[in-house]
This record gives sequence, structure tokens and C-alpha cells, in this order.
Amino acid sequence: MDEARFVKYLKEKFPFSYGGGIGDDASAVKMGDDYQLITKDLLIENVHFSLDYYTLEEVALKSIAVNLSDIAAMGGEAQYFYLGLGFPKLLGEEANITFFNALDKGCRQWQVELAGGDFSSAALLFISITMIGRARNPIYRHNAQTGDLIGITGATGESAIGLMLLKKGIRSGPLVEKHKTVVPGIKKGPILANYVNAMIDVSDGLLIDLKRVLTASAKGATIFYENIPVTDEIRETCALHQLDEREPVLAGGEDYVLLFTITPGKEKELRKENIDYYIIGEITSQPEDLIIKDKGKVIQPKAIGYDHFQC
Amino acid sequence: MDEARFVKYLKEKFPFSYGGGIGDDASAVKMGDDYQLITKDLLIENVHFSLDYYTLEEVALKSIAVNLSDIAAMGGEAQYFYLGLGFPKLLGEEANITFFNALDKGCRQWQVELAGGDFSSAALLFISITMIGRARNPIYRHNAQTGDLIGITGATGESAIGLMLLKKGIRSGPLVEKHKTVVPGIKKGPILANYVNAMIDVSDGLLIDLKRVLTASAKGATIFYENIPVTDEIRETCALHQLDEREPVLAGGEDYVLLFTITPGKEKELRKENIDYYIIGEITSQPEDLIIKDKGKVIQPKAIGYDHFQC
Repeated sequence: MDEARFVKYLKEKFPFSYGGGIGDDASAVKMGDDYQLITKDLLIENVHFSLDYYTLEEVALKSIAVNLSDIAAMGGEAQYFYLGLGFPKLLGEEANITFFNALDKGCRQWQVELAGGDFSSAALLFISITMIGRARNPIYRHNAQTGDLIGITGATGESAIGLMLLKKGIRSGPLVEKHKTVVPGIKKGPILANYVNAMIDVSDGLLIDLKRVLTASAKGATIFYENIPVTDEIRETCALHQLDEREPVLAGGEDYVLLFTITPGKEKELRKENIDYYIIGEITSQPEDLIIKDKGKVIQPKAIGYDHFQC
Repeated sequence: MDEARFVKYLKEKFPFSYGGGIGDDASAVKMGDDYQLITKDLLIENVHFSLDYYTLEEVALKSIAVNLSDIAAMGGEAQYFYLGLGFPKLLGEEANITFFNALDKGCRQWQVELAGGDFSSAALLFISITMIGRARNPIYRHNAQTGDLIGITGATGESAIGLMLLKKGIRSGPLVEKHKTVVPGIKKGPILANYVNAMIDVSDGLLIDLKRVLTASAKGATIFYENIPVTDEIRETCALHQLDEREPVLAGGEDYVLLFTITPGKEKELRKENIDYYIIGEITSQPEDLIIKDKGKVIQPKAIGYDHFQC
């Protein structure tokens, strides 16, 4: 069962009567004037990171950041979180303190609080954070409209190339930093929420995450590759390693930029806000009909690594 | 650092401005007329359970039940939860479906809903559930009063002996079932909340969990061992294995009964409710002065396994 089918199976098996549940970046339950947003993202040693090239501080900060990104993608503001921590005894007590110091640093940096949790020894390090936030008007994946423009708040592919470099033994540099240091769109998300119809954070890859919006909204899309921001670092690194840049840009995960759909009228209004974004395509009416064009020429997504980018 | 010091360190490092945070069975944040309760309990393979003697269904149900117990201990009602699941690929897709079927069974049995989560492959099985509930008047650990009676809703020690039997290769029987099948006090908790001053669920052992109440409340206690319920199964099994029954009864974990303190006047009122409980001691004024008497004779807790009961 692939992830899309698995999520569909879970949505059907576990209907949520309190509000929006499985299938978005966070659940949304009405509480007073606002909606409470709750999300949970796991970081597991040797699945999501390796201590060979992550410091404990980097892991701690990333574990908060990826959850903040989910709240931002719902157009919300994060408030506090619960920490499930499996911590190998072998790492020692000093490492444990290092971890919590980093968590404290993250709390201060992003203005969130640790509200509770459960801590245990474990054979491997894992962090299971449940982040609580709120939004006056949550933005879901299912509301993309035919004719909407598709926007993205930054470059994709940098993190995936950073990971590739790490796996090749390269331990520093701008793309390696991009992979290890997630900058969640916590400022942009709530501002975008005033304009957009649908939003998601790009955690698993531009095409896969766009496809989630299309599936949820029963729409299609045309993407204009030449409009997607591609940084000099990506171009140069791909050239150096003889990689097709389109593979990480379209299918590389963990960039945590925000992908949104917006009416052309609202997009004009959005320009007044002090936010960087790029319009990379448009929503079409045919469900799940995803077309990618590079200067007019249609690219076949399957041929360029549709599923998770593998280095 | 032991757990008490670690919790103190975390409470000081991570103050929680929204309500009651670290240091209780659940956090409590005022939302409208009620308090929202949130708790998180981990179950980790080879730490909290072994697949040698747990079925996946038993693990799934226990992972919900231990979190329900925390909500009950705050006097609240559970509503929905978020699942962080690390699932070894080796177990296979059928096992995954078995797990989610059991989760569904638990949802129906206990009237809670799955609201979201994150699922990943992992080298070992772990379940990190964040349970959401609510209470009109949450019951904390810090409000035990001098002169309060100490009550408990059931026997302790059964689960620890069950675990000992499992480790000896005995795979069935009433105590083994007690260890594997947690019955959370979800009916009793909200009723007790109308009468008691402080409450906790006995997850780590009667003395340790009582000590948490005493520390939080800056009180002492006298326990009358002869008033603690000890089942025939415990007596017989301890006799058979030449164990001092007081060790599992006072220090064995995972019975998930509720321990509470209550004024003598309120205790008289509580008798009208249809709830089984036992009065096993009383709260005294001297902070953390815990005295255990067995028919008048003082027992030294340290000599009978004060820390986690080890089989």
C-alpha cells in the first residue's frame, strides 16, 4: 500500500467527528473563535537522520521545526508541544542535557513552549513531537479551485542535494546546512492564510505534495518548470555531480517551503505583502491531471523521479 | 539524575504559561468552560513490551489504555488522540493492518477517536500516543491536604507479578492477563473528581506514585499495609515463587489503578457512589515523610524495593 492509499484507508477507518482529521498537515477543531491545530511529526534515527552527521542540537531543533512547518502550512500559529523522546542510554546524561538545552533554544527562537511528554530509554533515538497551534481560518488541502495560481515560497531540491552530499561524506556547505537546518515558514503561513485557497508544506517533494493537494481538491495542475526557483547552488552542485537538477527540484523532500493555490485576484493583493514567493503553475479542472512543462515542452514526471528522491 | 530530579529540572527549564504543564498525568489548559487535558505516553519495544509475549493487538490496545488512564487520573474524559507509530517493515503489511484493526477496536471500546499522526518504518516498534481529553475541574497531584485519607481503586502488584511470570516463560493466567490488559479507570476518574483533592494513576508503583503526590503537595503520609487490597492470586503466586508479596504490592508498576486523597467528610459522601475503593492511609503534614506500617509495625520502604520493582 503506498502512502496515498494508506491515508485513504485510515481516513475511512477512522472518521473524526470533532473537525478536520487525518489527511491534512494538522487536525483542526473549533475552539471558541479559533480552530485548534494539532500535528505530529516523527524523527527517527537511521530513518530521518543519522547521528553520523547530525548533532543532537540539530536533531532537537529540526524536530520542532518540522512540526512548526505543519502548523504554518495550515495558516496557524504554534503555541506549545508535547515531546515523546526515546533516548539511548549509551549517549549518556550529558547528551540528554545537550538535547534539552537545544530544545530550550528552539522554544525561545520560535516562541513555543514545552507542555509535557514522556521520556524513555530506547535502542535508538526518536523524537515524537505533538505540536499545538491555532488559526482563525485554517487552510486545508482540499480547497484548490480551477483557475487558481500555484505559488511556492522558496526553492526546492536544496535539502535533498544536501542529504546526497552528506551521504557522500561532505559534511558542510550551504546545501548541507539547508538539509540539516529547517527554517519553518511560521511568519509566511499566517499571512498567506489571508489570501490562499489551499496550502501544504513541501516535506516530501514538490510533485508529491502538490499531488496531495490535487487529490484532496479533485483538481489537476499545470506546472511551468522554468518558473520554479532553482538556486545557483543547486545548478552548480548538480553540474558537478552530473545530476539532472529537475530530479531534486521536483521530487526532493524536506525543503519545508509552503506550496499554495490562490485566485489571480487575491494574488494581486498578496503582492502588497512583504513575502517572497514564485508563481509556478495553475490549477486545472481535470482531477489529478498533473502536467509539467519546461519552456513549453511536456516533461513526464515518472521519468524524473516522481516518488521520493533517492540519492 | 533520577526521575524526580529530572522532572524538577524540566519544570524549571520549561515553564508553561498556558496552564498546568510538566509534572502531572496530563497538562491542563482552560478552554471555554472546561480544561483541555493532554497527555503523552510511550510504548517502546523491548523497553515497555516484548513481541515475544505481546500480540500486536495487545500492544495497540495497551498504548491507548495507558493514555486513557492518565486522562482519568486528572478526573477527565478522553476524546481523541494522535498516533506516532514506528513500525518495523519486517513485520509486514498484514501486521500493520492487524495493528490498525486493534486500534479501531480500542476506539470503539473506549469511545475515543484517532485524529491524526505520523507513521514511519523503524528498526523497532514504538507507539507514541498523544491523548486529548477534557475536565470541568481537573484534579492535580499538588493538592493533597493534611488529614486527607488516601484511597486506591484496586489491587497493586498484579501486573508486576504477571510480568515476572511472562519472563519465566509462563504465557497465560490471570496475572499475566492483568499485565497485558490494562483496564483504565475511565468511569471512576470523572466520578472521583467530584470528591477528591489529589489524584494520580499508579503506573510506576504504589510508593513511587504516592511519593509524587507527596512531593507535589509538600506533605507526608502514613500507609497501613494491612488495608491495601492483596488478591489471592498475588498471595498464592508469591508463596509459590517464595517472594515477599509486599515488594510487588508496594513497588510493582503498571496496575493503572487510581490513587487519591480525600477529606474524611468527602469520603463519607463518596461511599454513596457505586465505586470500589480502599482507604489505605492518611496524609500527614511533614513533607515527604512516608511511613508504612504493617499491623502497627513500621516497614522500611527502602528494604522492600522502593524503586521500580525488578523481577
